[in-house]
Amino acid sequence: MDSAEIVAKLQGHDRRTVARLISLVEDGADDLADVIRAITPLQRGAAVVGLTGSPGVGKSTLASALVGAVRAKGKTVSVLAVDPTSPFTGGALLGDRLRMQEHATDSGVFIRSMATRGRLGGLAWATSHALRILDAAGSDVIIVETVGAGQSEVEVAHAADTTVVVLAPGLGDAIQANKAGILEIADIFVVNKADKDESRSTVRDIRQMLHLGAEREWQPPVLSTVADQGSGIDEVWEAIEQHRAFLEESGELRRRRLSRAANEISEIAVTSMRRQMGTVSEGAVLDELSAQVVEGKIDPYAAADKLLAQVGR
Amino acid sequence: MDSAEIVAKLQGHDRRTVARLISLVEDGADDLADVIRAITPLQRGAAVVGLTGSPGVGKSTLASALVGAVRAKGKTVSVLAVDPTSPFTGGALLGDRLRMQEHATDSGVFIRSMATRGRLGGLAWATSHALRILDAAGSDVIIVETVGAGQSEVEVAHAADTTVVVLAPGLGDAIQANKAGILEIADIFVVNKADKDESRSTVRDIRQMLHLGAEREWQPPVLSTVADQGSGIDEVWEAIEQHRAFLEESGELRRRRLSRAANEISEIAVTSMRRQMGTVSEGAVLDELSAQVVEGKIDPYAAADKLLAQVGR
Repeated sequence: MDSAEIVAKLQGHDRRTVARLISLVEDGADDLADVIRAITPLQRGAAVVGLTGSPGVGKSTLASALVGAVRAKGKTVSVLAVDPTSPFTGGALLGDRLRMQEHATDSGVFIRSMATRGRLGGLAWATSHALRILDAAGSDVIIVETVGAGQSEVEVAHAADTTVVVLAPGLGDAIQANKAGILEIADIFVVNKADKDESRSTVRDIRQMLHLGAEREWQPPVLSTVADQGSGIDEVWEAIEQHRAFLEESGELRRRRLSRAANEISEIAVTSMRRQMGTVSEGAVLDELSAQVVEGKIDPYAAADKLLAQVGR
Repeated sequence: MDSAEIVAKLQGHDRRTVARLISLVEDGADDLADVIRAITPLQRGAAVVGLTGSPGVGKSTLASALVGAVRAKGKTVSVLAVDPTSPFTGGALLGDRLRMQEHATDSGVFIRSMATRGRLGGLAWATSHALRILDAAGSDVIIVETVGAGQSEVEVAHAADTTVVVLAPGLGDAIQANKAGILEIADIFVVNKADKDESRSTVRDIRQMLHLGAEREWQPPVLSTVADQGSGIDEVWEAIEQHRAFLEESGELRRRRLSRAANEISEIAVTSMRRQMGTVSEGAVLDELSAQVVEGKIDPYAAADKLLAQVGR
């Protein structure tokens, strides 16, 4: 498919093309630069909502319920489920995509899992590319769901305008949130499975921890849901819209998008460097340097300097 | 401390110096290049054993027991517990360091947790630096323990000569192992908590999965331990030594170390590029490029090319 064809297909919201392009991202394909270049004029600035939390808290169920809430407003929505823990197997690994089945026949909804095979770019690189593709294909809202795991949560938060942290009742998770620095990335907290007894104390714990933190312009609300019964969902969507209004009025939206673009540019630059170093490696420069390092003849920093010099730069 | 002093302290196996240098690694300190350069002549080629598996399988208990087995052979040993999931809090996060207390007064044992704050280099970068420091300080054996989480397990496997994958009884974990590509990185499997009923079927499941895989020069053994009772530990250490003999005889040890050095050099080169891009950013080049990308005036690939051109490369 050439660039003009890709652009035409995305303008026609062609789902198979979107799926194919995201597969290219997963593979770290060489021709992605051309694709991204071609679709940049289609950029619309979709609202990106990050959804993160430990496995089992009900992220997928909440995502599915939010899709319903977004559709009820007449907007189109994509869900991108990023699995940062599976570099090898690839493809759709989050087994609970089934919960999304209710939206399968809705042409205003696009759902896709993405494994990052880590071939070249990392999670941040892959996520930013996939967001560009979904945005260009006309999604008004993009929900990025990730498996909670420290650094990857932070990377997804960097990609999102609004980050929703999902917790399940029980003190453990709240402490966990504190430990992993989640307080610093959350714009909205959702305590799901709020029909459980401990949910009140979980909500209280999070509010207390927020209270102890630094004063902020935006005070993250702590909401309760029972996602599989649809309870509390509209309130979550409302909070997301309120946060978006705050982002726009305060100028924070532009700041976040600038910082996202800066990350994106750096990641692409680094990936390009890695590619070039790979090429140099075929030319045996890296092999020779590695042998010298293994033998203790030079230190790895000296080797890195020599490698960079060889990259023709 | 200047370089000559650091070298002298490491030659004297000074533990406080080792601890301080690893803190520098955690911080991604600027003067690490000088430290690594200075200690390269001390390089001894310690045996690096990676220990990975899900939380709760008993990795720390097994590590502690292995420390005892190594010491019984008259060798010195370090344990480096890498926590890839905690970019923020830093310091010693693995709560169960207490289990290592029995070795606290043994001068032939050094134990240290390392959080990767992800400031500059990633997990691979930090691990390779810490291994160099522990090696230079005279450890015969270095056990690298990591919290199992996909990509990070793979990165630790790249750093180790021998990778031990620890599982607990129950089919889930065995399937998990298959899913996460663990079969491809394991040199030795240990089913810990083997006093549990399901342990036999877990051992059988893993053997079956191994049987289905490609034929290999080294067939990973599947061993059983009850680490908190010290049962099965000597067999694990014996398997590690057998694997090491295999590595040496087959030439695989040199191949692994060459590949490790190549990774290390590339990571240092990439980190150096990131640093330079950061400097460019202060010069507002990246800011300007980011604004153009946010406004859709240029695509991020064109921006990355311009950034790399500015980095004088």
